[in-house]
Amino acid sequence: MTEGEALSGGVGGAGALEPLLRTVLDALAEGARRRAGPIPARTPGELAAELDRVASESAGGWLGVLTAALAYGSADPADPLCAAHLHCPPLAVAVAADLAVSALNPSLDSWDQAPAATVLETSLLAELARLVGYGTSAAGVLTSGGTESNLMGLMLARDLVLGRASGERIELSGLPGGGPRPRVFASEAAHFSTRRAAALLGLGEDAVVAVPVDRELRMDAGALAAALRESAGRGERPVAVVATAGTTDTGAIDPLRECAEPAAEYGAWLHVDAAYGGGALLSDRLAPLLDGIALADSVSLDWHKLGWQPAAAGVFLVRRAETYASLARRAVYLNPADDEEAGYPSLLGYSLRTTRRADAFKIAVTLRTLGRAGLGRLVDACHDLARYAAAGVRAHPRLELHAEPVLTAFLFRYATADPARSDAVNAALRRRLLREGTAVVGRTELPEGLAGEPGAGPGRVRLKLTLLNPHTTTSDLDRLLRAVAAAGEAEESGP
Amino acid sequence: MTEGEALSGGVGGAGALEPLLRTVLDALAEGARRRAGPIPARTPGELAAELDRVASESAGGWLGVLTAALAYGSADPADPLCAAHLHCPPLAVAVAADLAVSALNPSLDSWDQAPAATVLETSLLAELARLVGYGTSAAGVLTSGGTESNLMGLMLARDLVLGRASGERIELSGLPGGGPRPRVFASEAAHFSTRRAAALLGLGEDAVVAVPVDRELRMDAGALAAALRESAGRGERPVAVVATAGTTDTGAIDPLRECAEPAAEYGAWLHVDAAYGGGALLSDRLAPLLDGIALADSVSLDWHKLGWQPAAAGVFLVRRAETYASLARRAVYLNPADDEEAGYPSLLGYSLRTTRRADAFKIAVTLRTLGRAGLGRLVDACHDLARYAAAGVRAHPRLELHAEPVLTAFLFRYATADPARSDAVNAALRRRLLREGTAVVGRTELPEGLAGEPGAGPGRVRLKLTLLNPHTTTSDLDRLLRAVAAAGEAEESGP
Repeated sequence: MTEGEALSGGVGGAGALEPLLRTVLDALAEGARRRAGPIPARTPGELAAELDRVASESAGGWLGVLTAALAYGSADPADPLCAAHLHCPPLAVAVAADLAVSALNPSLDSWDQAPAATVLETSLLAELARLVGYGTSAAGVLTSGGTESNLMGLMLARDLVLGRASGERIELSGLPGGGPRPRVFASEAAHFSTRRAAALLGLGEDAVVAVPVDRELRMDAGALAAALRESAGRGERPVAVVATAGTTDTGAIDPLRECAEPAAEYGAWLHVDAAYGGGALLSDRLAPLLDGIALADSVSLDWHKLGWQPAAAGVFLVRRAETYASLARRAVYLNPADDEEAGYPSLLGYSLRTTRRADAFKIAVTLRTLGRAGLGRLVDACHDLARYAAAGVRAHPRLELHAEPVLTAFLFRYATADPARSDAVNAALRRRLLREGTAVVGRTELPEGLAGEPGAGPGRVRLKLTLLNPHTTTSDLDRLLRAVAAAGEAEESGP
Repeated sequence: MTEGEALSGGVGGAGALEPLLRTVLDALAEGARRRAGPIPARTPGELAAELDRVASESAGGWLGVLTAALAYGSADPADPLCAAHLHCPPLAVAVAADLAVSALNPSLDSWDQAPAATVLETSLLAELARLVGYGTSAAGVLTSGGTESNLMGLMLARDLVLGRASGERIELSGLPGGGPRPRVFASEAAHFSTRRAAALLGLGEDAVVAVPVDRELRMDAGALAAALRESAGRGERPVAVVATAGTTDTGAIDPLRECAEPAAEYGAWLHVDAAYGGGALLSDRLAPLLDGIALADSVSLDWHKLGWQPAAAGVFLVRRAETYASLARRAVYLNPADDEEAGYPSLLGYSLRTTRRADAFKIAVTLRTLGRAGLGRLVDACHDLARYAAAGVRAHPRLELHAEPVLTAFLFRYATADPARSDAVNAALRRRLLREGTAVVGRTELPEGLAGEPGAGPGRVRLKLTLLNPHTTTSDLDRLLRAVAAAGEAEESGP
């Protein structure tokens, strides 16, 4: 057996892994030391050239060489000054559990590729369904994230609400002779994956009606009811309402209970995208914000956001298992009927995928190790950090807060002396922080239709902080805000 | 900081991981020892009850407890008698590389979540494009597997061939006033994900025309040309031809060059599903079987099959990057235009996902460590094993071979004295092997339309061996065939 041919499984697998894991740990530490900050102080071109050099000049020991390069060239969410995205620093215990999954490689498309993983995923999903407030008739699956979960929700909605049996083609598109035009309703601040899913499903992006939001970017439930009424008045077919529990940029949570009512009235499927806000269910303090989530027909949760799992750790749940009907599949090589009758369960019909990694395992280990209370403390810690940072922004003469954080993120901007330069300076200061390796700060825009907000809409740059590292200290945050302000001053005084 | 709250990243991450990884390695070894075979000798019900007991009786140390339970309760592809599915035993070096990805948690939806991972994925994709024979205008992305890759190919085909701009709704469904009916052509033996994708995309499962296969389950290129001609004659619109390079059950490879010609003639997108057979590109001996693959508009490859990666390691490639147009997305918080102009690249528009794990990294480390030649030796070793086992089946008085292996898998069955009992006995002997923990053998059926094959079609059980463990020995295979025959005898003599 030549170098690199050892397998990770079997009785000898652990022994084969041991020296390789030592190499990885050493390389991770070396890369982090060399980076010495949240992100390497390089432009994208410089970093690419550097990595190309590593790849062309090294002569072996690739596991260590490339791992050190990956670690050096990472935006490390475990660094308190890496605070841009819903990109969490994973818990070491979750990462260690994920190693077991890589080593054993169970695949959840059939029982005989994943006997224990099938059991563990099923019981984790039951636990998560209880967390959402669903009863015992719930069902679900692990996904690659909110984008896939939102697609699944809209797919089931399309097939059920349009009354199509599994796999029939969509004929309802407003053509002469066709049925009523299908519509999906989501707030202006909903994730772009809703429109992407509508396109993928053949409904078309413009099937999505953008419902106005309030200043905190919450869907206006009255406007939703009006939009549904108007749509029905035009003879259209409301397929789904997508309510967001935790928008990507501000963590805004739509009034779920108030959204459920008009959705039900017009026969639309209610999908709640709680990819970010689902983490609030772990916190006694924040869980009440998600009041009404159990009324949803389907829910997206992402434990690689407010759950400290390495990606992917998405979850899709439906309130009633029977609504999964249109995805059910029988593949003679995976779930033959007589095997199912003989007691061999199959999860194939719950997923859009076939081969499927056991992402449930790391979540199960984490939940057991920390408990809901332990994870809730981490959620609360990040919420506290966001409130502290927002207060710091409010108190700073050159920084301007958009709104108080709901969960663990908020928008702000550097206030330029000349308002006309605001967008250019804010965009440039963020790139300066990246290039200098000082901080990773997010940026975004406010929805165009935002009532009463000056400078909302396309091209009007807002900065964003997303606090997902519970070990960040208040002095880290002071340092972060000073760095942002200093970069703003440097850009403003530049050409 | 209480137990379990340590993070995997930062300068201290490696130190926090070290004791946890030791726990995992010990538990992996303990679970494998306790299993003492390819799968635990338990029925699904017994295993579930056992795992529930572990979960209710343990009081802590969950990482070790649950890892040992997962390892014990796995179907371990590193055991030579686990040979059912395209479910490979991962290389230890790939698993170690995947640990680095879990620990650092890069997400490829924006540069500032994955600076180095963005560079490494881009250069890996260029290398894989060259392996396929594509030129420099190719593009692609890592996927969760062939099912997602096949969906992407059909989605691009739908949007390009039907001439729809990004995100428009599908209006072509044979309604009065609608355009011509869209059609997808794939062999009878193509993977079920083709039909699933057609349903998801709103084309409908019955948009898929099943083209006849020969006895080795290769698409009949003449029949494809005829099907395209007849479809065009009915005024339909051929959207795509899906050719398979390595069917799941027999590894059959459609004649790619001969399929490309009629596809081009009728303006259909050619997608080659090489999820399994793509591994043959690593072998000088087998690569010629994929002659013509570079003519495809898009290709699926799965390195978690003949590539010895832990799932997921799917790859989707297109020959011409510009055909990706309908997936391009701008998300103001991920890839603002001025950041791209300033040199910050974005891979967002290449994927159906948003958050995306750096699955390219383990593949890159493996390719560097073993080289194409080293991986090719593993492919050839599995091919040799399949041929040896097939010869053993042919020589066995109670076993009946379907056809010689093309890649590393083949079908066979236990020959019952009473042919009427064949299906029941073959199905039962497989479950017996699972229940007794002796072997994991696959089962499937032959396509209904298979010319001249007695006992093809629904309910006619065939057994399957898929040899993906290059360290398996010929005496392991002798033992495996003896176990199958003994289980068949036990079932046949039973009630």
